[in-house]
Amino acid sequence: MTEYNILLEAAKMPDAWYNIIPDLPKPMDPPLHPATHQPLQPSDLEAIFPKSLIAQEMSGEPMISIPGEVMDIYRLYRPTPLRRAYRLEKMLGTPAKIFYKNESVSPSGSHKINTSIAQAYYNKQEGVNEITTETGAGQWGTALSIACAMFDMKCTVYMVRVSFTQKPYRRILMQTYGGNVVSSPSDTTESGRAFLAKDPDTTGSLGMAISEAVEAAATSGGRAKYSLGSVLNHVLLHQTIIGLEAKEQMASVGAEPDVVIGCCGGGSNFAGIAFPFVPDKLKNGRDIDFIAVEPTACPTLTRGLYAYDFGDTAHLTPLLLQYTLGHQFVPPGIHAGGLRYHGVAQQLALLVKEGVMRAVACHQNPVFEALKMFSVSEGILAAPESGHAIRVAIDEALKCKESGEAKTILFNLSGHGHFDMSAYDAYLSNKLDDFELDQSVIDAAEAMIPKV
Amino acid sequence: MTEYNILLEAAKMPDAWYNIIPDLPKPMDPPLHPATHQPLQPSDLEAIFPKSLIAQEMSGEPMISIPGEVMDIYRLYRPTPLRRAYRLEKMLGTPAKIFYKNESVSPSGSHKINTSIAQAYYNKQEGVNEITTETGAGQWGTALSIACAMFDMKCTVYMVRVSFTQKPYRRILMQTYGGNVVSSPSDTTESGRAFLAKDPDTTGSLGMAISEAVEAAATSGGRAKYSLGSVLNHVLLHQTIIGLEAKEQMASVGAEPDVVIGCCGGGSNFAGIAFPFVPDKLKNGRDIDFIAVEPTACPTLTRGLYAYDFGDTAHLTPLLLQYTLGHQFVPPGIHAGGLRYHGVAQQLALLVKEGVMRAVACHQNPVFEALKMFSVSEGILAAPESGHAIRVAIDEALKCKESGEAKTILFNLSGHGHFDMSAYDAYLSNKLDDFELDQSVIDAAEAMIPKV
Repeated sequence: MTEYNILLEAAKMPDAWYNIIPDLPKPMDPPLHPATHQPLQPSDLEAIFPKSLIAQEMSGEPMISIPGEVMDIYRLYRPTPLRRAYRLEKMLGTPAKIFYKNESVSPSGSHKINTSIAQAYYNKQEGVNEITTETGAGQWGTALSIACAMFDMKCTVYMVRVSFTQKPYRRILMQTYGGNVVSSPSDTTESGRAFLAKDPDTTGSLGMAISEAVEAAATSGGRAKYSLGSVLNHVLLHQTIIGLEAKEQMASVGAEPDVVIGCCGGGSNFAGIAFPFVPDKLKNGRDIDFIAVEPTACPTLTRGLYAYDFGDTAHLTPLLLQYTLGHQFVPPGIHAGGLRYHGVAQQLALLVKEGVMRAVACHQNPVFEALKMFSVSEGILAAPESGHAIRVAIDEALKCKESGEAKTILFNLSGHGHFDMSAYDAYLSNKLDDFELDQSVIDAAEAMIPKV
Repeated sequence: MTEYNILLEAAKMPDAWYNIIPDLPKPMDPPLHPATHQPLQPSDLEAIFPKSLIAQEMSGEPMISIPGEVMDIYRLYRPTPLRRAYRLEKMLGTPAKIFYKNESVSPSGSHKINTSIAQAYYNKQEGVNEITTETGAGQWGTALSIACAMFDMKCTVYMVRVSFTQKPYRRILMQTYGGNVVSSPSDTTESGRAFLAKDPDTTGSLGMAISEAVEAAATSGGRAKYSLGSVLNHVLLHQTIIGLEAKEQMASVGAEPDVVIGCCGGGSNFAGIAFPFVPDKLKNGRDIDFIAVEPTACPTLTRGLYAYDFGDTAHLTPLLLQYTLGHQFVPPGIHAGGLRYHGVAQQLALLVKEGVMRAVACHQNPVFEALKMFSVSEGILAAPESGHAIRVAIDEALKCKESGEAKTILFNLSGHGHFDMSAYDAYLSNKLDDFELDQSVIDAAEAMIPKV
């Protein structure tokens, strides 16, 4: 029997997340306070995060137990399938074996829900009844809206104005799940009013929306907390369920990856699939090529600086040591909205800096060519973000075709593209632009990075 | 451990479809030739269907082997999960146990692909390189486009004009999978030109689109064949994979259904989940309540006549003995486009007529109320069609709450609602109409049923 769909018994679903902190090749530099630039104290974060998540953010425990209530909700859609892409391999004529972990079958349509459920749970445990957040394309806002519905909490989502206006279906999706969706910048926060005063016609940005969401939580007197969908250590931690499952599933068919690929915006989906395999490389000496794939329109890892920077426009977040294009950088309007972030998770940045992982940047048109190949071979209409991973998986498989190597390639299919049909339409009608940023644009943006 | 997600090992996926014909309580009356009204000969169908599918249409074999190539493509997404809806049960406070089979995780987003893959395979085996079909909301056209892509065949989809214009995302989806999508009525067929001559501004209808697709195949000189997404025996046969899997999955947790529910348009998704359980009732005497759920706007089983009728507007299809509202009936524009069909599968009609199964009709607003309850409890944004099954599952569970009975309820979640956001928006904004058809409208439509 050809084993396409490698399922994992529910009983074998991992019951602890993998914490990479003790396995990092060197200790991480501390986050800094946004105002004082001094190392951040856990208590500095208590205005916006619950204590249990702050503890996870700094934990040195190698494995962290997944609470039973979180496990129960994970079981609504987990373990997700791992698939062997036989039909794609055949189309490419490659000797490589291609596997992908299919996170697109989750209720929110992407991996994002793996952390939103955990975050909602820990907030609820500490008596929080509202969570605020930002969303661009809407994947994260959807995931958090569902999680809050599951725990009977209010969810307020500051949605970047241009998406709010142009992507009504994303908004309706969040509203169906009970999310309170606010067009950002809004007049409900001080930072929002300031952005509007400066430019009433602004399209908004993720940086502005983060500022509003953080402010709304910080000024709620403890009623509401803030939640972030990527970048932070505890977010990446929650996503390791992806790689832990994939590892068990691959082992069940006697496979181990030589190449592990994920698209990379803030870094949580790539980290989710890749981190559990890092000890195999660092401790067991297995030669694994970890590839984070980003858009050329937002080349954080390939053209950014390794430096301390803010996560938002209004300087409300801590400074993290990371790769960054500068917190004022506004990438061109590519369709992979989830990859349009100026920075990246500090853990991931450290691993790239230390040479454990590497990054590749892709143009939009080759990404959509890969998405189309994937749809007609494997049947799945994937998200533009995921298309970056598919593109590089195909490229690596084609290299194997040339070299004759039968490498085992694993990539993370982070989400479906059912809400990205206009992007597919643009590709099919030859209307997609490829963006190659001028060095002067990047230099100007990087000049805004604070000197710490 | 709470067992939410009941997976079936790939190795245990059924390798034969269940054919209900030998188990029917009485023989079916024969299909009649559309022109002569005499019993149809297999050869009459050869202009539009491959011989192997005609043989399946008439087969008396109790089980029909699934070809290996079809099994391999099924394995891209099958076995699909069976879920215990613990969270919905808790929300309702019911002692009932609710299970649902989740067909929404298929590449096409619905159960439709279970038959499109099989039909494409058998056509390809007989040297056919193009398949024509019609589509309303687009689910079937998408499923057939994917299947044709998998077998490297051309797929021409006549899409009802109003959907073609108003639902561009559905069209783009088919085009991404390589489908050739034609707005119907079109000037590419004789029947299309006749419809346009009669009314150049017509919105089109499924009946007209069927006429065009059948004509295009019948006049292709054997190059192209036609494919139907529901109603016919072989289509229902292919869908029994759903119920066969569900039966194994329920048995694995020691459960047997007391109530089996599916939404019902042409009948294939309801038959798919229900038929494999019919022998338990007819042969083993188990008291199972089979409920087909239809919209009040298109009440085929609850208000139609049991009579021979055509499947299309232009009288090109055979006459089948069925429940029908009349082949000229045009239902109001509800959002569950897949349930807007005037007739129903003859096998299903016979079982309802003989009292083995029953039917219930639902209004739109209660259906969307159920969809919303389902989304915030189980996390899944289901299709409006599937919402009909969810509504009745909830109603049956609430009856159990009153009576104290702990019935086991099984329903088929036929598809996701990711392309139905405007319908959700209309519901959330209180803009959905409920349609109760006046008897005079039904009488007028039923008067068009031919006297045979």
